[in-house]
Amino acid sequence: MIKAGIIGATGYAGAELARLLLGHPEVEIAAVSSVSYEGQKLSDVYPNLAGAIDLTLTDMDAVVEASDVVFASLPHGLSEPIAKKCAEKDALFIDLGADFRLYDEADYREWYKLEYKEPELHEKAVYALCEIYREKIKGARIIGNPGCYPTSIALGLYPLLKAGALKTDSIIIDSKSGVTGAGRGLTQGTHYPECNEAISPYKVAAHRHTPEIEQTLSDIAGEKVTITFVPHLLPVNRGILSTIYASLKEGFTKEKVRALYEAAYKDEKFVRLLPDGKFADIKNVRCSNYCDVSLHFDPRTGRVIVASAIDNMVKGAAGQAIQNMNIALGFKEDCGLGMLPNIF
Amino acid sequence: MIKAGIIGATGYAGAELARLLLGHPEVEIAAVSSVSYEGQKLSDVYPNLAGAIDLTLTDMDAVVEASDVVFASLPHGLSEPIAKKCAEKDALFIDLGADFRLYDEADYREWYKLEYKEPELHEKAVYALCEIYREKIKGARIIGNPGCYPTSIALGLYPLLKAGALKTDSIIIDSKSGVTGAGRGLTQGTHYPECNEAISPYKVAAHRHTPEIEQTLSDIAGEKVTITFVPHLLPVNRGILSTIYASLKEGFTKEKVRALYEAAYKDEKFVRLLPDGKFADIKNVRCSNYCDVSLHFDPRTGRVIVASAIDNMVKGAAGQAIQNMNIALGFKEDCGLGMLPNIF
Amino acid sequence: MIKAGIIGATGYAGAELARLLLGHPEVEIAAVSSVSYEGQKLSDVYPNLAGAIDLTLTDMDAVVEASDVVFASLPHGLSEPIAKKCAEKDALFIDLGADFRLYDEADYREWYKLEYKEPELHEKAVYALCEIYREKIKGARIIGNPGCYPTSIALGLYPLLKAGALKTDSIIIDSKSGVTGAGRGLTQGTHYPECNEAISPYKVAAHRHTPEIEQTLSDIAGEKVTITFVPHLLPVNRGILSTIYASLKEGFTKEKVRALYEAAYKDEKFVRLLPDGKFADIKNVRCSNYCDVSLHFDPRTGRVIVASAIDNMVKGAAGQAIQNMNIALGFKEDCGLGMLPNIF
Amino acid sequence: MIKAGIIGATGYAGAELARLLLGHPEVEIAAVSSVSYEGQKLSDVYPNLAGAIDLTLTDMDAVVEASDVVFASLPHGLSEPIAKKCAEKDALFIDLGADFRLYDEADYREWYKLEYKEPELHEKAVYALCEIYREKIKGARIIGNPGCYPTSIALGLYPLLKAGALKTDSIIIDSKSGVTGAGRGLTQGTHYPECNEAISPYKVAAHRHTPEIEQTLSDIAGEKVTITFVPHLLPVNRGILSTIYASLKEGFTKEKVRALYEAAYKDEKFVRLLPDGKFADIKNVRCSNYCDVSLHFDPRTGRVIVASAIDNMVKGAAGQAIQNMNIALGFKEDCGLGMLPNIF
Repeated sequence: MIKAGIIGATGYAGAELARLLLGHPEVEIAAVSSVSYEGQKLSDVYPNLAGAIDLTLTDMDAVVEASDVVFASLPHGLSEPIAKKCAEKDALFIDLGADFRLYDEADYREWYKLEYKEPELHEKAVYALCEIYREKIKGARIIGNPGCYPTSIALGLYPLLKAGALKTDSIIIDSKSGVTGAGRGLTQGTHYPECNEAISPYKVAAHRHTPEIEQTLSDIAGEKVTITFVPHLLPVNRGILSTIYASLKEGFTKEKVRALYEAAYKDEKFVRLLPDGKFADIKNVRCSNYCDVSLHFDPRTGRVIVASAIDNMVKGAAGQAIQNMNIALGFKEDCGLGMLPNIF
Repeated sequence: MIKAGIIGATGYAGAELARLLLGHPEVEIAAVSSVSYEGQKLSDVYPNLAGAIDLTLTDMDAVVEASDVVFASLPHGLSEPIAKKCAEKDALFIDLGADFRLYDEADYREWYKLEYKEPELHEKAVYALCEIYREKIKGARIIGNPGCYPTSIALGLYPLLKAGALKTDSIIIDSKSGVTGAGRGLTQGTHYPECNEAISPYKVAAHRHTPEIEQTLSDIAGEKVTITFVPHLLPVNRGILSTIYASLKEGFTKEKVRALYEAAYKDEKFVRLLPDGKFADIKNVRCSNYCDVSLHFDPRTGRVIVASAIDNMVKGAAGQAIQNMNIALGFKEDCGLGMLPNIF
Repeated sequence: MIKAGIIGATGYAGAELARLLLGHPEVEIAAVSSVSYEGQKLSDVYPNLAGAIDLTLTDMDAVVEASDVVFASLPHGLSEPIAKKCAEKDALFIDLGADFRLYDEADYREWYKLEYKEPELHEKAVYALCEIYREKIKGARIIGNPGCYPTSIALGLYPLLKAGALKTDSIIIDSKSGVTGAGRGLTQGTHYPECNEAISPYKVAAHRHTPEIEQTLSDIAGEKVTITFVPHLLPVNRGILSTIYASLKEGFTKEKVRALYEAAYKDEKFVRLLPDGKFADIKNVRCSNYCDVSLHFDPRTGRVIVASAIDNMVKGAAGQAIQNMNIALGFKEDCGLGMLPNIF
Repeated sequence: MIKAGIIGATGYAGAELARLLLGHPEVEIAAVSSVSYEGQKLSDVYPNLAGAIDLTLTDMDAVVEASDVVFASLPHGLSEPIAKKCAEKDALFIDLGADFRLYDEADYREWYKLEYKEPELHEKAVYALCEIYREKIKGARIIGNPGCYPTSIALGLYPLLKAGALKTDSIIIDSKSGVTGAGRGLTQGTHYPECNEAISPYKVAAHRHTPEIEQTLSDIAGEKVTITFVPHLLPVNRGILSTIYASLKEGFTKEKVRALYEAAYKDEKFVRLLPDGKFADIKNVRCSNYCDVSLHFDPRTGRVIVASAIDNMVKGAAGQAIQNMNIALGFKEDCGLGMLPNIF
């Protein structure tokens, strides 16, 4: 059994990791840490886990020490020292935060207002969107686990961009996220009576996931891609739906586009291309590692519309992190990720 | 006191009309009809209204006969005969359905698969988006009350299109609607456990409000405007948020755009332009006749993003119908529409 | 026009008061205060009110000075000095907090761990559950506005207790409250993802409304009544449903019990006795000042079950406060309270 | 691998069974049936299951023929013929409906208005609340799977009644159920806009689970127990919370009561006794087979209050059915039931 540790285990992504890893047949959770709840049991903070885990929350050094694979789910700017310690003891480090996602430090500096203090770690790090970068992930030791929005968007656009089917300056992405995406921290906007029965955009064309999205889309397209990205806060617990609009280049018919997706995803267990006439819905992927993609066309304007749905806490965070661990360590890729979506 | 009648009073728009008209100081409800519940009291079907209205549901002829102003909220294809009877007795007819919204019968034929049997009625009818067509509404006797999506969208784009600020082939509209928009009829998709905690697009680039939206946008712009319109079903009771994307023509700066909105809406009680940095949210307009509009810019792509929020049952249906009655009959325009949004 | 002031205007009850008073024809809001937001506009904190109120939040002394009637919605222990200042200038004081609800200081001491510093104010104060204590409220100058749970419960039990129909040691009350009842303050339990799709009891048999409930029930019954009261937090914004269980004394049949309610409430506009076979539901009273009561019987055990539904923010707080003002100042009792429930 | 069949696979309980059985290591789903959707794929009706199951819905005879264990989730009155066919081929039959729950036909006749046509099958059938009747379930071939409310209630009261700690005529049960409990069939009351933001009791003291509850409670207590049972419809998808009130007999202190629960449940994996001061919440058991129980006391009235939370679709239906299969067939009791609750 591989020993896994979770740093930041009382945040939502950390708690979801714990919940999912407890069902992983090749892994045992060796240690969990939390700054706010150190000394308490994880199951006191998360009573849903009572009876399934008996660990007491400790500090991050203790987690690194006890673990073969370390997952960290922390605010940005805190992951480099952990990555370094993991590297020293040759533990696999999987960062669910933003610190190892951007290859270009300039992007990190612009959007996060911080610098890379350990550039050599970033050179080793792999941005690990499993279905797109699988080969690079195999054997990687520092993994930047993708953000939730970027995952839904890159999987939604991958076949089109790879085939050069899009006018790349036409891409507009309207994403809707459940409230767990905002984390466990208390804010007026996520206070139940002010979040329930509400919807609004936020950080319009200014969300920090923008450079990460563009990095991946540009890499796939082989050219610089600039997008408009607008996230919305949705009164549901889990799920991201990204509705993606783009203009097709001449010659890319409905049939041809569908064929691109079928070719790209026919062997991907976790990406489900919906039949013609169906619409991606977050309920169909809830609590699972699936990404559902539906294709739509506006013949009057020549646009394709892609709807892409994931569970932000699973494929958008903890699930993909486990999938990355599986790939990096050579386990079966879907190991421990067999949970089926609960549609209701 | 003007005598008002409601045909289709047990549908959601009809019931909302009854609720609001009961608070209108110049109107009394004279008759209400329903095919499904004829012979029952309206307050038996809607116990929220118990104690406030004691009328028994009758048939549509009885409503026309008893009323000076007739509101109809019916499936499409049923309004012409009512309009005709109202015309014969010179009652004001306000249609909350789709039959008197499209000026071009070809559009109606294409999207609704029906024909105009009484073309002369359509020549007299006015498409009555109050803030845009106020002058034409004054004294009108047949009023096509706008659809919910078109209201949110036209008010969101009006100042930009009127000023010629947009590349009109760039407009993409991503709308999110509460479930009352789907009506009172039972469907699997609006069954609580399948609608709660879910979101998906529907009728992508194929919704029947499309020609109505384009009719108004084209009229404002003075040129044919073709849009991409994608509605989504949102797990809330009330509200529509339309997030509208478009490319600005050269020279239309952030400041200039804001000035256009300020000029257009400074005297409009029911349109509220939000300050810079704020985001339109359906909760801030809930149960009111307001339309909140917020402006956002993506300097990296030259796009403007407009967020427009209304209560689909009020400004998007019953409230605007009353506003239209007020304009048509010469009452104060906000008469009976003073209800303030309940943010929680 | 009477000048009204609101102390604690940015809490939920205060904001609801502002929203409702803006529609009251005999009142203008003269001043509003907030400790947390002093110096900001109320409509900046509550953008739903933009366009309807332009006041800047000030301090409590300024509110008292500017007002003929002062509403305070504050944590317990803070109302006495305000009441004193109001008394000095002979302004009507309506306290939405807990400080003027309990006649017996011993109860206050036991449940709130504080003392009455101004006992003579408490002697003048009236516990103002409108339908039960209407005569005492007329002309009162210090009004203790009832709590939300106590209002739903006392109105639910009043006819039975007044008639001596119950075995008074048998009363069990299971109440369910929307999240606005917990206020605007942020807590983990009211963070959207932890409150949505959840329900649990809280403060079981230990809620501070217990002595207030017992004070009223005992007063009605003419004997000491001890109850079991268990509140639950419900994932809705507004509304309280109290399901009340009690054993009937011999001879009190279904018909007789119904007759008691009809007699007690036949002239009460805001209490609606539902027909046999219907069930009180919070949706039917939402955003209104109504209390809906339904009666049920368990012949196998001899128990009566009363379901009582109110909007906790209206009849349970701001609406009843306005009703009390109307009674105390001699306005029509339902003045400004005509809003009808929005069932959806 | 055992071959399992599901009759009524497109109802909510049937679909949940399919979802859970797909993760059971000892079972493969051999056949599924549906009257309404015969000929379609189950994954077309439930797209959440796409990629995980490829079976076409057939008829019930085909299911019986193909299966070693047959689960049926049908309206009452339809299970006897299936049970008979299963008996003939010696397949294990697990009925999630009501037909094999009541031992006394008189109860069935009174509450369901039907008769037992195959009394000898009922003699063989076992009412299978796992934690209470485990020994009888071992080797049983006809299993009446308990109802959702009865499961939450019997587990909540078992230790108290077994110890004779309660005045048995004092038991009052106030239950709150998520909307999946009302099934997949469309009704006005479960239409999203009329169910969301609402709560009301229903079938007050008249719900068909009453005789089932009393059968179990009486059996445990060793005397006839008559209860008052009031269910409520709660605007959440999943979960039942039962708040149970009863008077303690002299001598049963808080400590003694807790000791009874600890003794009863210390070896039960799926029943979690919460620590003092914690409250059972449906969110902590969501999507799992757990039953969480919290204990509370009202010293002023001598009552104990038990809060018991389950997922109505899992421990209250499909999960307990699988647990029963495991017991009956000699698998590990928690086999295939390892899913941990997702608290958010």
